[in-house]
Parts: sequence; structure tokens; C-alpha cells
Amino acid sequence: MSNDRFERGLERQPANFQPLSPLSFLDWAAGTYPDKVAVVDGDRRFTYRLFRDRCCRLAGALAGRGIGGGAVVSLLAPNTSALLEAHYGVPLAGTVLNALNTRLDAKTVANTVRHAQSRLLIVDHELEEVARAAVALIDTPPELVVAGGSLDGYEALLEAAEPVAVALPDDEWAALSLCYTSGTTGNPKGAVYHHRGAYLNALGNALVFGLSPESVYLWTLPMFHCNGWTFTWAVTAVGGTHVCLRRVEPKPAFELIERERVTHLCGAPIVLNMFAHSADKPARPFAHKIKAATGGAAPPSAIIAAMEPMGFEVLHLYGLTETYGPATVASPQPDWPALGVDERAREMARQGVRYPTMADLLIADGVTLEPVPADGETIGEVLFRGNTVMKGYLENEAATGAAFAGGWYHSGDLAVLHPDGYMEVKDRAKDIIISGGENISSLEVEEVLYRHPAVLEAAVVAQPDERWGESPCAFVTLKSGAEASAPDLIGWCRQEMAHFKAPGTIVFGELPKTSTGKIQKFVLRERARALGSAG
Amino acid sequence: MSNDRFERGLERQPANFQPLSPLSFLDWAAGTYPDKVAVVDGDRRFTYRLFRDRCCRLAGALAGRGIGGGAVVSLLAPNTSALLEAHYGVPLAGTVLNALNTRLDAKTVANTVRHAQSRLLIVDHELEEVARAAVALIDTPPELVVAGGSLDGYEALLEAAEPVAVALPDDEWAALSLCYTSGTTGNPKGAVYHHRGAYLNALGNALVFGLSPESVYLWTLPMFHCNGWTFTWAVTAVGGTHVCLRRVEPKPAFELIERERVTHLCGAPIVLNMFAHSADKPARPFAHKIKAATGGAAPPSAIIAAMEPMGFEVLHLYGLTETYGPATVASPQPDWPALGVDERAREMARQGVRYPTMADLLIADGVTLEPVPADGETIGEVLFRGNTVMKGYLENEAATGAAFAGGWYHSGDLAVLHPDGYMEVKDRAKDIIISGGENISSLEVEEVLYRHPAVLEAAVVAQPDERWGESPCAFVTLKSGAEASAPDLIGWCRQEMAHFKAPGTIVFGELPKTSTGKIQKFVLRERARALGSAG
Repeated sequence: MSNDRFERGLERQPANFQPLSPLSFLDWAAGTYPDKVAVVDGDRRFTYRLFRDRCCRLAGALAGRGIGGGAVVSLLAPNTSALLEAHYGVPLAGTVLNALNTRLDAKTVANTVRHAQSRLLIVDHELEEVARAAVALIDTPPELVVAGGSLDGYEALLEAAEPVAVALPDDEWAALSLCYTSGTTGNPKGAVYHHRGAYLNALGNALVFGLSPESVYLWTLPMFHCNGWTFTWAVTAVGGTHVCLRRVEPKPAFELIERERVTHLCGAPIVLNMFAHSADKPARPFAHKIKAATGGAAPPSAIIAAMEPMGFEVLHLYGLTETYGPATVASPQPDWPALGVDERAREMARQGVRYPTMADLLIADGVTLEPVPADGETIGEVLFRGNTVMKGYLENEAATGAAFAGGWYHSGDLAVLHPDGYMEVKDRAKDIIISGGENISSLEVEEVLYRHPAVLEAAVVAQPDERWGESPCAFVTLKSGAEASAPDLIGWCRQEMAHFKAPGTIVFGELPKTSTGKIQKFVLRERARALGSAG
Repeated sequence: MSNDRFERGLERQPANFQPLSPLSFLDWAAGTYPDKVAVVDGDRRFTYRLFRDRCCRLAGALAGRGIGGGAVVSLLAPNTSALLEAHYGVPLAGTVLNALNTRLDAKTVANTVRHAQSRLLIVDHELEEVARAAVALIDTPPELVVAGGSLDGYEALLEAAEPVAVALPDDEWAALSLCYTSGTTGNPKGAVYHHRGAYLNALGNALVFGLSPESVYLWTLPMFHCNGWTFTWAVTAVGGTHVCLRRVEPKPAFELIERERVTHLCGAPIVLNMFAHSADKPARPFAHKIKAATGGAAPPSAIIAAMEPMGFEVLHLYGLTETYGPATVASPQPDWPALGVDERAREMARQGVRYPTMADLLIADGVTLEPVPADGETIGEVLFRGNTVMKGYLENEAATGAAFAGGWYHSGDLAVLHPDGYMEVKDRAKDIIISGGENISSLEVEEVLYRHPAVLEAAVVAQPDERWGESPCAFVTLKSGAEASAPDLIGWCRQEMAHFKAPGTIVFGELPKTSTGKIQKFVLRERARALGSAG
């Protein structure tokens, strides 16, 4: 067979086949830019040489404790150098990184650490209390190491350790990290990331977000969130600078943007919203451009319109924990800059097209896999296939099997495909409101409410309706000092879209949020149900 | 075993594992930027939608002829759209691309096509004569299709074809292309590229050379040279624009740079030299910056100094056919812009550090693999290990085994490692001159000669020397109108470096070159031998 000619004597061997791993970026950056600042964390600045040394010491400390071979190490910390180092030091020891949400309570931390079977929990001193409480709830608790504060156990651990050399894993399919999605009780879903996927998504981020050796990345996105959407590795892959940030507040963020000449940052729309409405907003735009990638929800046009004059260039990414964070991007088209801000915002609010590093994206019937037409109207499920999809859920074959049914990863998000090939997420399956047999996208109603000048935040859910089955119910927070009545907002909605889509009820007040800053729609759905029929 | 937890139920499956292939970039670019110009070729402009269609038609035409499953398709063409399309259309049909050097004679073309067992030879109309002569020398010759000209067989073939859909290969280790290194007689070395390596080197190029969707790439580098250093795929990976160029001449190149607002180009130093000394050089610098990557030989400082005022930013890459072209880069350091041009040129002339996508680079004893100290003096062989190293040589297990001895790819180049981690190639093993027991790098002597204001080109080889064993003999071409005598140049060399390194003999005249524009040192070595002893 002729085909054979291209295989015989041409097998994989160490010279031409090495595992893909984001750990390779650490050695590359430290070799290429040894004296460049890798990490800024408060008053401390680590060069790439020192950063690599610290990561290798962390790995050495784990090895010295006999923690290796697929054991789990958990981190509970805000965006500090210690958490960033864990993204390299933990897998360098052959162990799996589990970064915990810093807003979890002790019981949830305990449940997660127990399910992960963590051997070591490194906790930031500010969160020591919740960690101690969690550990007390576990029968065979992990060792606890406190980072930062007056008695810095983490620094002592690094100092005492024998650094290991950077080595790649034996197999690029090896587990790298473990990221739990929201539900940790009942049916825990710990998404397992592999080295190959993290390597490729990091390169995808670098390409899509335009990272270069000159990039200075401000950590406004929690690193515990999909390993910081894999920017923990992507910034190192280009030899850029990581600027840590303990708390996402406008003032310190603005100061760091100026002082460190930050070029890139990421955050949920709520973070951008906070920047746009901050009293600490600089009087003049920043002297340099800052690229801001947002995701987790579509950025309302009002946010884009407010960010641009400050010097931010907003990019909209979309993805899920199961896809290492970002998997699609509303790629700016050559003709977008000429559009007005409203029209541009509408284009950008779409979830767009797949990353170049994601093999396939399909908007289709989740069961038959029949693709929807590109008509901007027919709704289908968002399905992915590619190397930047998780290995599966840890010790949960049922959930893994359901997620990968039919050879595609099922996101559970519902979207339309526009004629230009851009997809637009309309809702989570459970967020669609069905009124008089018509589908109403809660996101669409929210988008209209966000455009009202008095609205700071809005969330729309279904309310039982005797006549229509369901009708939209809006929960709204007004901007400080602004005023608007329920009839004002309902009138606004009726003016801006089809009447049947306008909310029947408006409820004013603060919105309940998850620990990652997402609005808790299930809480609002309960409240809406408790209100009784809107009809 | 705890490790098992991270494997059980977490196997590779289509949802999370897809072969890496540069073919995925074609579908991605056509999906993301359907209406953007993908290719400019003379008067023709193809959008990405049309470009994909043409590639898919080429694949359909091959399938229609029953050419598939590891068969070889050869191309003999300058940098035209047809050759670029072959980089996608040929592998889409499951066949292997073999791009031939356009400067080969009929006999060498015949030898190559015979060894490759090509089924089809697509030839540009300008090279039809040599192709017909070559085909006449082969017992079972490939089908011949002529592209371009008055009777365009290639266009007819596309028109008649049923386009196939873009599909990835079954295995990322599958053969993608076949690139013959210089020697095709006696011991033919056809480097076989795999999809995984081409995908990764393309992403490496995009990162290292700063490609983005705004990039406009001028094809001054032959596509037949390591598949255009994999820029044939890299430019598509970012959705940039390919600008074809039949002949590398300053005037049309300068016109395209202006008209298409070219942002990136590659070429051997000889190409940059031609630009820098062209009579058609624009009076003023270009209105925009152009990044020019050079490789194949170190760029002499005089070239860098001449290019910068024109608006070019020179980047020095290094690699070999066996490493898909570029594998290292003289990465600019943050402090380089502040250096004077001479000092900067000295830094840049080094081959630098590995690509982020190459796993490992080692300067070491080729046999013991003992690394050299980073002292800038001790010479070792340049060794690579990683995914951007070829599968091996086609049907040449002996050469493959020798190339991959000890688990590393042996480049045959000799280099030193500087204290800052940058490597500098001193010579091919056979290019070192040993004089009085001292090693003299012919490259070092050439660099000094290039700095002389009257010198256009210089090549230095060993000449027998009764007293010293060997001594340097320089072959020099002077700039048009410039004057310098042999004593002038020898005096210049003695002033600029250790006396024993200065050439004993200077020979003026034109330098013999290979079909890829490399100076043929073996011809010069023979001439130097014929001169007799220098002593």
C-alpha cells in the first residue's frame, strides 16, 4: 500500500513527538526573558527566572511531602502570586490543581475538597477562617498551608524546598486541573482539564486576544474561574507580565492600569459595569489602549458605549467551564469600526464564531444533531467538538456520558445562527419564557432594559400567567440617584420591542448573585412564582 | 491507585479529541471572514469563501481521478495562488504535497518526482518546458496539469470538479507534505511533515511574528521552501491576506507593499540585501511599518542598518527543512530598542531562543549530548526535540536514524550558547576553519567583511596552508561602483578582529548560488583548494 510509505520508519519518537503542556511555556519564558517581570503582586515583583524558581520549589515541596502521581492540591486564594504559581508548581509535581471559588462557605469548601480528595489545601491568610472551618468538617482532611500574612507558611514551604526541574508530563492527556462547576452537592461535577487542551486554549487566547511579549495582563478575572480562562498560561506563553489583584475594585484597578501600563484584562460584564459607573473613574481616558475581554454573559450595549471613551476596547468571548473558558469570540469584522456604537454593540453582543483552536462548533438539535438554518431565528443547542473540551467529570460517568452524547459536548445553551455565521446565545434551556406559545428570550428583554438610562442591572425570568402560560417578570436595580417607575420601564420595553415580550411585572431591588458574580436566576424564578399569576 | 481516578471514564472521544491539522484553519478562516480577501494574485482577488471553495475543488478533482490515500502530488510553480491552494487542496484529498524548487533542472525534477512517486504534477505555465522534459525522463510519469497561461488546465480542472467538504485527517501524525533537502541524487532526503507539526509551527509563527487578522503577508519567500516556512498555513490561521508574487524583484515588491499595505514578509538575507541596494528604493520610508523575517543565514548588520530607515523591522529566524523552517528566533529584548544599530545588529544576528512551540533546544556534544556551558565560546551541535520536527526522511531509514540519534534531531550546525541564553550558529560542521589549532568561524569573518562599506557579498572558506594547516580565504563581490583592494580588505579584517582570523587570500567576483539563493560553499572550497597553499 502506498500509504505505508509514509508510516514505515517514520514513527513517533522523542525527537519529533513531545507532549503538549502549558508547563512548557514556563521554561520557554524563563529561558527567553529571564530578567523580565513575570509577576507583580502588591509590592513584590518577580522576574521570569525567579517565578520559575518559585514554581519549581512548590513542586519540590509537594514531592518532598510524597504528594504526586495524580493526587489533588487545592488552592483557596484571591488572585495572588501563590495561586498563579500553583498553576505551574502543582502540575510540575504530577499533581492536579483544584482552585476553589473564594466566595464559597466552609461547608461547600469541605464538600468540594472531600470529593476532590485533596491532599493539601493552600489558603490565603484572608480566607484562613473558612478553610479551617472546612477542614474541621472532613474526616481525613488535607494538610493546610497558609499563604501570606504575618506567619507565611507558603513562603516557608518554598524556602525549605528543593526545586525540581521543569519536565513535561508523560502524556499530554494527563489530568492538569480540576474545576468544579456550580453544583457541588448531590451531583458534583468536577471538570477535568488535560495538558493538551490547556496548551491549545492558551495559544488560542493569545491569538484571539492579541497577546504579545509587550502585554501586561491585569488579573480582574478570578483565577479560580476555569483557571482564569487559561490566561494563567496564555500570558506566560508570550512572556507577558501578570499583574495580580486581590479585590476587583475600580480604584486599585485604575491605579494599576496607569502605573503598570496594563494592556489586557478580562472580566464578567458586571466588572466592566462597575468600572463604567465608578465614582473613581478617571476624568480623562487612559493614555494607552486597554483590551477588555468579557464573557459569562453578553455585554449590554450601554457597557460597551461607556467603556470605549475610557480607552477600553471590548471583546466578547463565550465559553463554559467544560471548554476551558472561552471557546468562541465575537471577532470584530473589518467593517465594524465604521458602525455606530449601538449597531456595533449589537454585533459584539453575539457570541460569534469558534476559536481557531476549537475544532468544531455546531448549533443544532441536541438530540438529532440536525443543524439549524443560518436564519438568525431558529433556536438550537450550542455543541462543541475539539481539543479544548474537558476530559470529562471526575468520577461521574453518567454526567460525562450525557455531556458527550452523540460525539459532541452539549453546552445546554440555546442559540441562533445568523446569516453571517455568528451565533447568538438566546438563553439557557431553562431561561426561555414561553408566552402564548411564543418563545421570549429573557436575554433580549434584559438587553432592552439595560439600555434604559436609569437601569444599572436587570434580570428577567418567567412568571406564571393564567392567560398566556408564562410572562416575563423583570427584577431591576436602578443606578444610584436615578429614578424610574414600573410603568416607565414597561412602556420603554413596549416601545423598543414586540409588545408581548414586555415584562408584566417589574420588581425593584438588589439582585441575588452567585459567588462568581452571576445573577442567581433560580432565586428570582422562585420569587416570581411566589408573586402569583401576572394575568 | 489514585491516578486511575483521572483516567477512568475520562478517555479520549470525538467530543474532546480531534486531530491537529492546518486544514482546520481554512474552514475557520472561511467561517469567520468569508468576505475578506484571502489571496491577491496579480489582478485576481479571492475572498476566504472563494479560496476555500477552490481548495475544496482541487481536492475533489484529485478524488475524482482516484488520487488519494497517501499518494503524492507535486507542484512546480512560483508563488501563485495555485501553489497556495495546493497546500490545502492536496492534503484535503488525503494526498501528500510535494512542492518543488522552481530553479531545478529537468533531470533533478525527474529524480525527485520519481523518488516521490508523484501521481500528478501541477506546473506553472512559465515552467512547462522543464516539467515536460522531466516527465519525458520518467518511466511511469505523473499526469501533467498546466496552471496559468492561455490554456489554463488547472482552472479547467477546478471548474469541472465536485468540491469536497473540509475534513480533518484521521490521525494528526498523518503525512501532510514532502520537502526534499538539497541532495536528491545518491541519498535522497525527503523530509516528511505531519499535520500536528505543521499546525503547531503555524501557530508558533503567528505568535513569534505577531500575525493578526489585520496582517497582509507578501510572498517574497518561496512557498516551495519548507512550505513557505509554514506561513502558507500561519497566515490563514489568523485570517490574514496572502499577497502572491511571481518573481522577487524590488520594484514589484515595493509596489505591492504600498498598494496592499503589506505588514509582513520573509526572505533570505540576500532578498533583504536586494531591497536595501535596489535602485528602485523609494525615496522616503514606507508610510507604515513592515516586519521582515529573515533566515537561512544571519543578517549582516549592514543589511539591518539599511532596512530600518526604509520602514522595515527585521526579525531573525533560524531553522532547517527538518524543523518545518523556523525553530528559533532572536527574540527582541526589552532593552534592545535603546541600543545603537551596530550593537542591536550584533544581538539580532544571533539565532536566539527556541520557538514557544518547539519543546527543546540543546547546544551540546552531538554524541555524548553533554551541553556546552553558556560561555559564548564553547562550540556544540544544535539539537532539537519537539513536535515541529519532521516524521523522518521518506524511505531512508538510515538517514532518519542518524538524524534522530539519541532522541534528538541533529541539525549539523555548530553553535555557542551565550550567557543570556541566546545561541549563535558559528558554522556548519564542515565550514569551520582550523588554523594553527584555533577554530575560526567563517561566519564571523564574513560578518566583518559585510561591514566594510564597499562589500556587497562575502563568503569565507578554508584554504590549505602549509604553515597553519588551514587559513581563511574570502570570496567577495563589491557593490556596484565601489572599490577596494585585497590589502584594503585584509587590513580591515585585521583591524576588526584577531589577526589570525583575517583572510590570507581575497578573490573578487560573483558568488555561485544554489537554487534557493544560498551561497554554494562547496564550490568555493574547491576553488580555494585549487589556489594551493596560502602560506
